[in-house]
Amino acid sequence: MSENKKKFIAVIGGGQCSKEEARLAEVVGRELARQGAVLVCGGLGGVMEAACKGASSEGGITIGILPGDNRHQANPHVQIPIVTGIGYARNIAVVKSAQAVIAVGGSYGTLSEISHALQSGIPVIGLNTWSLSKNGQQDNSIIPAENPTEAVEKALNLAID
Amino acid sequence: MSENKKKFIAVIGGGQCSKEEARLAEVVGRELARQGAVLVCGGLGGVMEAACKGASSEGGITIGILPGDNRHQANPHVQIPIVTGIGYARNIAVVKSAQAVIAVGGSYGTLSEISHALQSGIPVIGLNTWSLSKNGQQDNSIIPAENPTEAVEKALNLAID
Amino acid sequence: MSENKKKFIAVIGGGQCSKEEARLAEVVGRELARQGAVLVCGGLGGVMEAACKGASSEGGITIGILPGDNRHQANPHVQIPIVTGIGYARNIAVVKSAQAVIAVGGSYGTLSEISHALQSGIPVIGLNTWSLSKNGQQDNSIIPAENPTEAVEKALNLAID
Amino acid sequence: MSENKKKFIAVIGGGQCSKEEARLAEVVGRELARQGAVLVCGGLGGVMEAACKGASSEGGITIGILPGDNRHQANPHVQIPIVTGIGYARNIAVVKSAQAVIAVGGSYGTLSEISHALQSGIPVIGLNTWSLSKNGQQDNSIIPAENPTEAVEKALNLAID
Repeated sequence: MSENKKKFIAVIGGGQCSKEEARLAEVVGRELARQGAVLVCGGLGGVMEAACKGASSEGGITIGILPGDNRHQANPHVQIPIVTGIGYARNIAVVKSAQAVIAVGGSYGTLSEISHALQSGIPVIGLNTWSLSKNGQQDNSIIPAENPTEAVEKALNLAID
Repeated sequence: MSENKKKFIAVIGGGQCSKEEARLAEVVGRELARQGAVLVCGGLGGVMEAACKGASSEGGITIGILPGDNRHQANPHVQIPIVTGIGYARNIAVVKSAQAVIAVGGSYGTLSEISHALQSGIPVIGLNTWSLSKNGQQDNSIIPAENPTEAVEKALNLAID
Repeated sequence: MSENKKKFIAVIGGGQCSKEEARLAEVVGRELARQGAVLVCGGLGGVMEAACKGASSEGGITIGILPGDNRHQANPHVQIPIVTGIGYARNIAVVKSAQAVIAVGGSYGTLSEISHALQSGIPVIGLNTWSLSKNGQQDNSIIPAENPTEAVEKALNLAID
Repeated sequence: MSENKKKFIAVIGGGQCSKEEARLAEVVGRELARQGAVLVCGGLGGVMEAACKGASSEGGITIGILPGDNRHQANPHVQIPIVTGIGYARNIAVVKSAQAVIAVGGSYGTLSEISHALQSGIPVIGLNTWSLSKNGQQDNSIIPAENPTEAVEKALNLAID
């Protein structure tokens, strides 16, 4: 099957993360690969690396869209390193290159990615991540998932064309 | 006084906004100019235009960092249009060019700017804007202000070097 | 063989091009795929499309780093569309993601890519493309090739790590 | 006079440069300020710093569009530092923010700026800089100037709206 018929799903989260977040991300990556999806991420460590490791272990394709100037910045499980040289502006490319996004934990960088995805109409599934409210009103745009398998299922179901 | 001794403060918010948000933004702009600050914004309409209008009315300097390819995209109160051609990635330049950020209302684009500012350690003052929590835990990084004057006062006090 | 062991070679050139340029680009793409290289390009028409077509016809992997906001902007032979949303700034990502660059014809956009590659120390092979001089002095940084096969051979030999 | 009625002219060239290039750039900056133009540049050293120094000495406005994450990266004569955080992709913002470009010497980074300007239809005036040919055919898009005063005169005359 040609790669461009596969679904592209981004996994976002901290470059450093807890063991539990790494575990969740790895299962997400594994499950995405099993379902034939292409994994897009920011290419660095933490959640990104764990997700790539999971996907690679199941023979999935992993794309790492890097902030820096050097392909060797990618974690060892990235098969397709994209070298942008534009720093955190690459966050936008990570989410725009995906048809749905799964956020695992994460800090303000991840929140920026969530924001850019929501702004672009790309569905965001959240695992132990941010929740938002505005003027005291809850914003329910981030779709919660109970576990990695549910996150992947929702991401694949909601993926835009 | 040379411009580079002045404080650079960003005002962020929707390209479309309510009348109340426009009023708040205009007062913020006016007050920033009175205090000798340089206004940085995304250069378009809504909150950005209202803030520029306020600043201009008091003889302040207004910088508009535009997403598109054309300087004429700027609202009429922008004195210094910066034409980036990089789309929403210019959001990052808006906040990074400021020493503190005032958010007025806003949608996901504004939330991305808030995120990028917090990630960069740039103080964010909020007027009727987003609030954040993570894993059920409130995140108090966005500093609330009751009114535009308080927002400007806090921004100038907290501005980083 | 894992993709990240393969060599990543960019093919750059006009989004519109002559029939001869399209022919050259297609042979370049075909030859790159035969040699097991991954093709990186800007993902649009003209030289980019011809190169992707050639690579695809030999089962090669094609990456298109797009300027716009939509994956459907990619030509039909792009298997891995990267959606940057940063306009022409994506030219930099095209060349930085490659270990060597082959320029086929091209206008000022291609010249910007050649410049960014040379600035980053990435070898540039030229087929009917720009030549440079400074202060009346010839600059020989663009390595000429007589034909597509020679261009591919030189690109693979000179590819940096 | 409001800044947005003034002409915005970019001066581009190496971050390191010869004494003669620095002298030329400083005169260009001085002359631009005398003519009431706003100086746009990349904000760093070499030609950029010399041009800003010249403009500042005549009370002109200087804008430095920086590649990095920190306003203190700007040379001391930049009054309006724009912090992009996008690395060399800021080259595009430098030229797009100008209505004409004056290139003084320069290496491949400068050539990328020349290319982006020509691609965008922004006139480029050259002082001891690159010249281009394609397929053995001279490309005369870079308009030569004999000296800094002539460069400024041509830039102001050719400045697009």
